[in-house]
Parts: sequence; C-alpha cells; structure tokens
Amino acid sequence: MHNYSFSWLMNLGHKVPVSIVGGTGYSGEALLKILLRHPAVRIDRIYGQANAGKKIGEVFPAFTGVLTTTIEQYHLTDTGSSELFFLALPSGHAMEIVPELLKANKKVIDLSGDYRLRDARIYKQYYGQAHTSHELTHEAYYGIPELDGAPGHGLSLVANPGCYPTSAILPLAPLLKEGLLKNDTIVINSLSGVTGAGKKATQEMSFAEIDSSVKAYKVTGHQHIPEIEQALSAFTGKNVSVTFTPHLIPIRRGIYTTIVADMEGSVTSADIAQTFQEYYGTKYFVRLRGEQAPEIKHVVHTNFIDIGWNVDAVKKKVILTSAIDNLIKGAAGQAVQNMNILFGLPEETALH
Amino acid sequence: MHNYSFSWLMNLGHKVPVSIVGGTGYSGEALLKILLRHPAVRIDRIYGQANAGKKIGEVFPAFTGVLTTTIEQYHLTDTGSSELFFLALPSGHAMEIVPELLKANKKVIDLSGDYRLRDARIYKQYYGQAHTSHELTHEAYYGIPELDGAPGHGLSLVANPGCYPTSAILPLAPLLKEGLLKNDTIVINSLSGVTGAGKKATQEMSFAEIDSSVKAYKVTGHQHIPEIEQALSAFTGKNVSVTFTPHLIPIRRGIYTTIVADMEGSVTSADIAQTFQEYYGTKYFVRLRGEQAPEIKHVVHTNFIDIGWNVDAVKKKVILTSAIDNLIKGAAGQAVQNMNILFGLPEETALH
Amino acid sequence: MHNYSFSWLMNLGHKVPVSIVGGTGYSGEALLKILLRHPAVRIDRIYGQANAGKKIGEVFPAFTGVLTTTIEQYHLTDTGSSELFFLALPSGHAMEIVPELLKANKKVIDLSGDYRLRDARIYKQYYGQAHTSHELTHEAYYGIPELDGAPGHGLSLVANPGCYPTSAILPLAPLLKEGLLKNDTIVINSLSGVTGAGKKATQEMSFAEIDSSVKAYKVTGHQHIPEIEQALSAFTGKNVSVTFTPHLIPIRRGIYTTIVADMEGSVTSADIAQTFQEYYGTKYFVRLRGEQAPEIKHVVHTNFIDIGWNVDAVKKKVILTSAIDNLIKGAAGQAVQNMNILFGLPEETALH
Amino acid sequence: MHNYSFSWLMNLGHKVPVSIVGGTGYSGEALLKILLRHPAVRIDRIYGQANAGKKIGEVFPAFTGVLTTTIEQYHLTDTGSSELFFLALPSGHAMEIVPELLKANKKVIDLSGDYRLRDARIYKQYYGQAHTSHELTHEAYYGIPELDGAPGHGLSLVANPGCYPTSAILPLAPLLKEGLLKNDTIVINSLSGVTGAGKKATQEMSFAEIDSSVKAYKVTGHQHIPEIEQALSAFTGKNVSVTFTPHLIPIRRGIYTTIVADMEGSVTSADIAQTFQEYYGTKYFVRLRGEQAPEIKHVVHTNFIDIGWNVDAVKKKVILTSAIDNLIKGAAGQAVQNMNILFGLPEETALH
Repeated sequence: MHNYSFSWLMNLGHKVPVSIVGGTGYSGEALLKILLRHPAVRIDRIYGQANAGKKIGEVFPAFTGVLTTTIEQYHLTDTGSSELFFLALPSGHAMEIVPELLKANKKVIDLSGDYRLRDARIYKQYYGQAHTSHELTHEAYYGIPELDGAPGHGLSLVANPGCYPTSAILPLAPLLKEGLLKNDTIVINSLSGVTGAGKKATQEMSFAEIDSSVKAYKVTGHQHIPEIEQALSAFTGKNVSVTFTPHLIPIRRGIYTTIVADMEGSVTSADIAQTFQEYYGTKYFVRLRGEQAPEIKHVVHTNFIDIGWNVDAVKKKVILTSAIDNLIKGAAGQAVQNMNILFGLPEETALH
Repeated sequence: MHNYSFSWLMNLGHKVPVSIVGGTGYSGEALLKILLRHPAVRIDRIYGQANAGKKIGEVFPAFTGVLTTTIEQYHLTDTGSSELFFLALPSGHAMEIVPELLKANKKVIDLSGDYRLRDARIYKQYYGQAHTSHELTHEAYYGIPELDGAPGHGLSLVANPGCYPTSAILPLAPLLKEGLLKNDTIVINSLSGVTGAGKKATQEMSFAEIDSSVKAYKVTGHQHIPEIEQALSAFTGKNVSVTFTPHLIPIRRGIYTTIVADMEGSVTSADIAQTFQEYYGTKYFVRLRGEQAPEIKHVVHTNFIDIGWNVDAVKKKVILTSAIDNLIKGAAGQAVQNMNILFGLPEETALH
Repeated sequence: MHNYSFSWLMNLGHKVPVSIVGGTGYSGEALLKILLRHPAVRIDRIYGQANAGKKIGEVFPAFTGVLTTTIEQYHLTDTGSSELFFLALPSGHAMEIVPELLKANKKVIDLSGDYRLRDARIYKQYYGQAHTSHELTHEAYYGIPELDGAPGHGLSLVANPGCYPTSAILPLAPLLKEGLLKNDTIVINSLSGVTGAGKKATQEMSFAEIDSSVKAYKVTGHQHIPEIEQALSAFTGKNVSVTFTPHLIPIRRGIYTTIVADMEGSVTSADIAQTFQEYYGTKYFVRLRGEQAPEIKHVVHTNFIDIGWNVDAVKKKVILTSAIDNLIKGAAGQAVQNMNILFGLPEETALH
Repeated sequence: MHNYSFSWLMNLGHKVPVSIVGGTGYSGEALLKILLRHPAVRIDRIYGQANAGKKIGEVFPAFTGVLTTTIEQYHLTDTGSSELFFLALPSGHAMEIVPELLKANKKVIDLSGDYRLRDARIYKQYYGQAHTSHELTHEAYYGIPELDGAPGHGLSLVANPGCYPTSAILPLAPLLKEGLLKNDTIVINSLSGVTGAGKKATQEMSFAEIDSSVKAYKVTGHQHIPEIEQALSAFTGKNVSVTFTPHLIPIRRGIYTTIVADMEGSVTSADIAQTFQEYYGTKYFVRLRGEQAPEIKHVVHTNFIDIGWNVDAVKKKVILTSAIDNLIKGAAGQAVQNMNILFGLPEETALH
C-alpha cells in the first residue's frame, strides 16, 4: 500500500479509490453522502445484491443529479482496482468476503459485527451462526479512535464499532479506567431511531406500528452486550459487566444512552469532569456537556458524541447521558474517521 | 355523604354531581372524556382561570356538539352543589383550595403532587415552595388501587398518584415486598410523551424542538423520586432507594418504564411470574406480559398497565418493563378508578 | 329477518350476533373496538386468513384481557349463526363471498370498494381485475347516512363508502345540488394517514421512509375518483367531474381534504352557510366549523366530520376543508352507523 | 464594492466578510450551517436581539465546538466591516434597517417579505402594517435564480423569494409563459413543516398540538398569494391569478406543493416535459421527476427542487407536484445561491 500523507494527497490531487459493498442500506447511504464530499476519496464501485444494475439514483432518489454510479453485483474473484472497501452489509455476510479481500491486499473497514468479538463461541451465541473466518478477528483493529488511537502499521482490517457500543463505551471507559466507577453495577439504557434496525420491509417496522409507541427489545440478549463488555474490559484491564437494554422509539436516526453506575469511594462531580477533560479535552468529536443532558437534535447529521453527567452524592451514583447519530458516529462517520486515521489524513476530513 | 351503592345508582338513575377544577389542561380533557361516558356521574361545573367564560368547545373543539358547559372562574367561597371535586391543577395550586373544600364536606380527588409527600421539607425541596396545608396530607389516601385497596370509611381526600410513580411502583412493589429484589440497587429509566409536561406555550416544547429528538431532564432531581421511594417503603416496610431518570420523547402520550434491579439469592423467572400472579392475577387493569416487553401502543387510551420481565440468571438481575397511558392510568383514569372505589361502584366503570 | 326495534333490544337484551371477516387489519381493529361497546351487538365470530387459530389478543395485544375470541378460517359454506357480516377485506375479496352470504339470508356491510361502482368496466379499470358478482352492486345500498338516508326495506347489502369519498362528498353534495358550485372546476386535494393504506409489510411504508416526508401517489388514477364522481352525480342529478389527488403524510390516522371550486353567479359565504345548515343542522356527526378550518386532532377517534369553508369573493371561489378519522367516519364508524340505521337503532349507538 | 471573481477568491484566499441579522431563528441557523462551509465567506458578526451577549453555542448547542461567535445587539449606526448582510428577521423588521445599510454601501440579501411586493397597498393589506421604505422595493432584485438569471450590475438589495412561492413559481412559470396553461384556473395546495412558522413559543405550535394532526390556515389570506401572482405575471407578461391554500403538517422541514391547472388546447404530457427540459435541463438545482411524484425526503437538507407532473388528457388538466426544503431552497440556500451569483461565484458553491 502507498504511504499516503495528507499534504501529498491535497497537493497532487491523488484520490483513494474506494468501493462500498452493501451500499443501498441506511448506513451505505450515509457513507456515500460523506464520501461524496471527501477531498481524498474517489467513489469507485458500489455493490448491492437486490439492486444490481440500477443507477444509484433509482435506489436513492436523493442522489439524482449528484451521483450516477451503477450498482454492481459483487463477485468474490473480481475485487477490482479499489484500495479500500467499506462493507455495509448485515452481520454474517462480511465474513464471507473479507478473506478474499485481504488476500488481494485490500484495506477493509467492516461496519458489521463480524470481526468485533474475540471469542468465537460468543459470536455464535449472539449472532446465531458459526463464524467462517473468525481467526481474522485477531488481526482486526476494533476502533473507537478517541480511545484506541491509531491502528498499527500495516493494519488492513478495521472492525468498526457498533452504534450502541460507541454511545456507551465513550462515556464509561475513562471513568472505569481511572477507578471512579465500580465494575459490576453498570446499567445502560439506550433508545434508538429505526434506521438502526436496517432497511427492512416488515410489518413491525411500519409507520403505523412505530409512530406514537415505544418498546424494549432483545432484553438481556442483544449482541452489543458482549461487545461493550469486551471493549471496556480490554481498555481498563478489569472485568467489566453491564446490563444493557435497547429500546426502539419513533425517530428516524439517533441513539440516546443513559447509564447509571455506582461511584467508588469519595468520587465527586469535579473528579468526573476532570477525568473527561483529560481524556477528551482535545478530541474534536467528543463534546462534554457537564450537567446539561445532551439531546439528539444537537448531534444528528454529525459525527459528534455529546456526553453529560450528573452525580447523586448521597446515593453515590453517577448518571451518564450520551447522544450520537447512529448512522454517523455510530456507523458511517466513525468508519470514515477510521479511514482518515488509516490513511494519515486529518481525523475530521469530510466530517465537519 | 350518602352511602352510595352501585345497584341503587343504576336503578334509580341517581348521578353524582362532580366538578373539575383546572379542566382545560390535558389531564382535565382526558378526565372529561371519561366522565362523559360514566353512567353514575353528572358533570356539574368546570372551572378554569384563563378560559373562564368560554364554552368548553371553544377550548377543546373536539367537544363541540358533545358538551356545552361554560367554564367558570373558581371562587373559594362558592363550592356549589357538587359532591366530588377533581383537581387537575398544576402542583402548588391544590393546596390553596383543598382546605375550604374539605370544610364544606366535599370529596376531593387531587391529581397534583400537593398531598402525596408525607414530609413537608421534602415537598418544599422538590416542589420549590412551602406547603400551606401540609397537615391534610396525613388525612389523604395515596392510592394505587391495585396495591392499596379501598380507602377507609369516611375518607374525603385522595392524593392521586403521579404518572411515573404508577409506572414504577406497580412492577416493583410485589417483588420488593416478597423479598425477591434488593432494596438499594434499583435503577428506573422512564420515557414520557409530551402531554406529561402539561399544556404550555414554550419554545422547548414546540414541535420543531421535540420531533426527532430525545433528552433526559431533571436528572437526579425529579419530584417523583421521593414519591416512588415513599410509596415503596410504605408498602414493603423496608427502606427502598431508587435512581430515577425521566426522558422526554417525541410522542403525545404514554410512559415507558424500564427498571433494572439485583435479585436476592436464588430467585428465578418463575418466582417473579408467580409473585406477579398472586398480586395481580385478578386485577383487571394489570396485564402481565411475561418475557414479551410491553409497548405503549397497546395501552394508549386505556387504563391498563402492561408489565413485562426478563431475568439475567448469570448476572442475577431482573429487567422490568411497563407501559401506561400517562393521561389515563397515570392521571385521569386512575382518578376515576379511585372515584369508583370511593363511591362503591365497580372499579372498571367508564374505564373499559 | 327480525323486525328489530331499539326499545325491544334494550329491554329484552337481545343482541344481534355479528361476524367480522378480515378482522385483523386496521379497519377490523377499529370495528372491533366499536362493536365491543355496542349495547345491541354480540361479536360472534372473527375471521382472518393469516392469523386463523390465534387468539385475537395475539394479533392485537391491546385486546388482551378484553376480548378472547379465537380467529377462524373463513369457509364459504359455513356462514354460521350470525345475522350480520362486516367485511373488512382488501378490495377484490368481498366479491368472492358476498353471493353466498346473501343466499344464506345474511345482512352484509362491505367496507371494501367491491360493490360501490355501478359500471363494471370502470371497476375493472380502477381496481385492476374483473368483477365476479358485479350484478349485486345494483342491489347494494351505497350509503353516507347524512345524505342518503335510510336504506330501503329488505335491503341486505351495504356498500360502505370509501374514506376519501366520505371526506369529499359530504362538503360538496349540498352545494352542488343547490346549484351554488360549478360542476366541472372541482379540485380535491386529500392528505391521509398511513393506516389508510392497510396493514402491510413494505419498505415504502416503513417508519424510516414515511416519517418527516410527504408524497402524492396514484395521481390521476386513484380508484376513489369514479366513486366521488358517481356519488355526486347521482345525488345531484348532474354530471359532476373532479380532479382528485391523494397524499400520504406522516400521521397514523385521519384524512384532511381541501376542495377548491368555482361558485356560480352571485353566491356568498352566507348562502353556503345556510345551505350547510339546511342539510346538516340536525345531523349529529357533521359539525359545521364556518371560516375556522377543521383540524384532524378534533375528529380523530370519533365518527365526526368537521367541515369549514372560506370564500374568495373576488375570484368567486370557495375553499372547502374537511377532517375525518379515516378508520371511523371513513370506515368502521360509518359501517356501524349504517348498521344502526339498518337495524332501527339510534344512529349514534356506540359511536359517541 | 470590489469586483470579485471566483478564481481570485479561491487563489488568494480572500473571503467576503458577511453578517447575519436575526441569526437565531431557524432560517438563521440554516444559513450559518451553509456559510460555515462556504469557501469564499467569513462569518463576521451575528446579530440577535433576545440572545445578544450569548455565544452562538448557547442558543444552538449543535454549534458547540464549531462556531464560537458571540451574538451582538444590532445598532443602526454601526454597520461594521461586513460587505454583505443577510437579514433573517420576521417581516416588518428588515424595512427598518435596510435604508441605513444601503446608505453605508452594503450589499443586503433580505429573507423576509419586506421588499418583495411592488404595490405598497398590497404589502399593507397582507402584512398588516404600513411600509416605511417601500420605494427601495423598486431597486430590489426579486430573484429565483433559475428563472430570473443574474441580478444587474451594481445591484445592492436582493429580496429573497418566499418558501411557498419558490415551490409554486418554479413549476408554473415555464408552462404559463409558453402558453400551455390557462392563467386563471390555477389551484395551489401546499403543505409545510413547522419551521416555516418561525421559532415561537406558542401553545398551538407545541408538539402535543401539532403531532398526528393537520390544518389549513390563513385560507384565502396568506401573504404569499400576491407574491406568487406578481412573480408569475411579471415573468409571463400575463395576468395570472391563483387560489393558494397552505397547510401545516407534522414534519419539521419541507414544503410539498400540488398544483392543478387547466391545459390550453391540445397540450400533451410530452409538451410539458419538453418545456421543462428547455427551461431547467441545465439547471443544477431543478430535478425533473416526470410522472413520479417527488417526495420531501429526497430534497430535505438540500437546495434542490424536485418537480413532477401528471396529465389527465380527458379532463385536460395537469397536476404539478414539487418538493423543497423550506429552510434551504425556500430560504437560506436560495439566499446563498443569490449571494454566489451576486459575487460571481459558481452558483452551487457551498450548496452541494
């Protein structure tokens, strides 16, 4: 792979040719919108199964007059001339094509859950199927850039974090690592917009069923539970356990996460503020809101995560709140943020 | 007061004359709709400050052709001929008029928070003002009928429970009382429709600000925290402590509550099911949903509370979920349910 | 058939046994809710294809604890003991079973479009299939009760009007009949909630696709165009032509219709008011709003139609506006209103 | 004023200093978002009355970390160093400050209705107040760029078109000018998101009142009626008359407009397609959708207008449909488009 540097790209106008596999879902659409304004990217090919042969504007009329690419059927053996592949496929599909892509020396950023879980049995338990290329998980960089920093030299596979995990790990990780919170009393409640469920034709996702209602789902069984626990345990070196309950609410996009945890010893609100400041004070995409709870409307269509915190000093609890756009910081935006880091570009490129 | 019995009312057609003070808010509107179809009630007077002099149809065009009452200004000294008063006023106003009503031998069902908290200092702390008739709280029946049964003979003042408390107390009370849950690890997250905030002209409650967004509010400081703790402690005889976080979501009506708590010892999902069955098996308005989480759409416009539960046997946690209509089971419906009990009528009258 | 009269039913407690075929769609659900509170009706059987064998509470959890009927497969040859059948099937299905029902001396109220259009070719053109029992259309009573009065003696088949037609015909019919409007300049724009499209699992009806958007659909080709023209022409004895454009908007229920038409000669706003008063002054379910445009929220969950009108005296145009609940006055409510008339009951029974 | 050219700006990095007066409403917010990514603009000052002294991030938390300007009180006598002023004030306020700005040799783009209507009496009739500087209207460029082309040399005041007019004029103007439609049978129905009503704290704009409902408003009396008629008459040289009815629907942003008009003589669908192609074939922001009706979701957050058309050949009517984002093509986007033209920049700059 070329040793890209930002100045070179900008000066010489070289653009990285990228392909998107599964470009016709909601994450794929969000990804296309970001890549279209990315100064160092050329959208090479868009792959999609059901819509192969159609112009992108037929699937997303919003792209009419903006992007004229024809959607192609993906073939394992023809990986083409792209240097980077974004996989925006449902979980269970990336594992079928990633081995070939890596063999062909492509870089891959996988937005699905396929390469996130280090334990193949847990993958099978939560995703309901056996993994066919699980060994690659150990070569993958699981990355929330604000916590995990740059991927190592020569890395080729990024397991882009899940939407709920991003919203929960960023508020919790610094406080757990610095010993401000107990490891085993963490209660996470998340509310998600419907685009998080993907683009499906189901009765239960119809407007008439979703509007004016709310429901919890996959209680005690959501696949993001082991992802959150694994990431927090890895980051802190402790055995972190959480109770996570996702809810579906009548909004299109956005995740709102509320976390309650017991504080250790004599922790104060100021300690929490200081720890957040140390970890995130210079991170562009993390906004610290203090005692003012975040709101989804302030982050929607952006790559920001807003974090708030409130302390109950008598009960020795902290309530953490966070808001992200599930399709941006929770998927496509963070994927491009990871791409920027991987290619030596400024992290914020195309994400302002 | 007359010794009403249902059969007498039904046979002779006697109807209880009732007045509503504060009849032009969302709870007042819901109350009017229920009372209009109540076979044993005659709507006597409707009092409202800002709208005095107007026909009810001018304030609620939905009532045009259905109810023609003219809204009146309330006067402390003229309590009229009603036997029962529903107070649907913002907190802080009921305490000004209840003493006179009781002196005039009226029955009062207060939908506000004024007579719910037994400790005057806590009332002041959470409601932001001193109580002017707090001693009457000790004569009041604070009542969720499914738990607290019938009010005592000769009782005149009902402190109708709050919306969030109703949604949290009903799932928690039996499990805490029977020793299935720990007292001090309870985390309650609630999502409320906007009618819970009352009928206000504020920028922050405008459609443009609420739609497609979510926010937590009054984190660690909501006035329903002491109400929940007081009711659960009173019912169980234990010192119950909770962490409660309310959220505003873009729906008109409904409350969804998700509770996480540590289970004691070797409690199982079957134990929880059995306890719920014992307490609520014969209660018409409590529907036990088991491992199927409730949804707001199943309870909206009804007096039902739907309760679900899921056990994480490894982590020894239970996740309880409940759904109510904040204006019905969380306010006007429960008020009429309390009225029915108070007057010896079948609990479900007008609430089917 | 028995010669029912209201007083007899009420006194002796006789209840009409009714069955619903297609009881698991949105109209069927609305119908069940109304019939459950109908004092002269006993819900006999509920038929549904996909859900046969399930309890009604499994399909509509809102009915849990309220109605315990098991859904049955419909058999042409076993019409059972019901006296009346409501058909809440998609268009094209009623025509298959109505002939057998009429042979078995059942009364039928069909909520679909199958027996509304007098011209079999136009039925085929707009509904996309040939009619298999079109001759029965001529025995059917197409009825908006406020305009068409009571069905004739011995009538057995009611073609219940469509939702859009109800919202357009009621405002237009009196003004056209009395010669206040021109016949051929009528422009009708309607906005419908999504339940009007039926209960389907399609990508285009998903929350993510409907929320925050609007679209016109079936422009110039909607099947309600000939229904509106036929009904208005029949009522007025004139050749009435309309341009009708339906739109889908992000609400669950309700239809809003705005009509612009040229006024004849020197017609004034007062003339229009007077004509409406003459036709609808005593009609309970028609509310005349004058120059105050109706709003969907004032009619939702009711059988009312609210009608407003504004005159542009310079341009000699009238703008008529109407609002109904598409599932009540536009379907199930009007069906029960027709049932009440058919059985000699007060028109408002169960529809307050 | 400098004779800007795009290449010079781009090469030398000169940026036009612009100020926004009334920057804290919804149009102002949309304008700031566009200008922040405009390569040739430097946001100089933001003026606001109620919020003067606050950081922009306090009023719009979405701008936290992105823009740190402090909002200032506007003073007539201190117009500062900006070369261009965007006025995003409610109608009636621009006329107070524009005279001073023009005297100070500033360029002004006014988003309000103050300088759109050529007849001062009509301004007074529809806006409810006398104009204090109406003579400047005759110096103003009223401009929909796709129709009206570039403003003349030395022009200083742009009256940016209204949201409803933009959505109606663009579909109608070419067809009327080419004689395909009759001038006096035009019926326009528009549906608007709530941000079109501005940022107000009123009961009627609250979520609880708007959600799940629809209403027509200002029927026969909306101030955009004379604006549409004036613009169409000026463009076509004919006396164009329209009936326009606006509706409020539960979406945040977007306008959907449906127009019905009588076609002249033997006009066909192909004629209409050809005329649109001639006028708009090369216009980036106009997308011709043919018989596929546009949808708001395809244009929201963009400066596009999507236009569809359907012909009823028997009734000789055309139904035109259009969709725009009321805050972008209907306000801030078109304002920047006008700015780009005024400063010799490519029309699309910052509007992709």
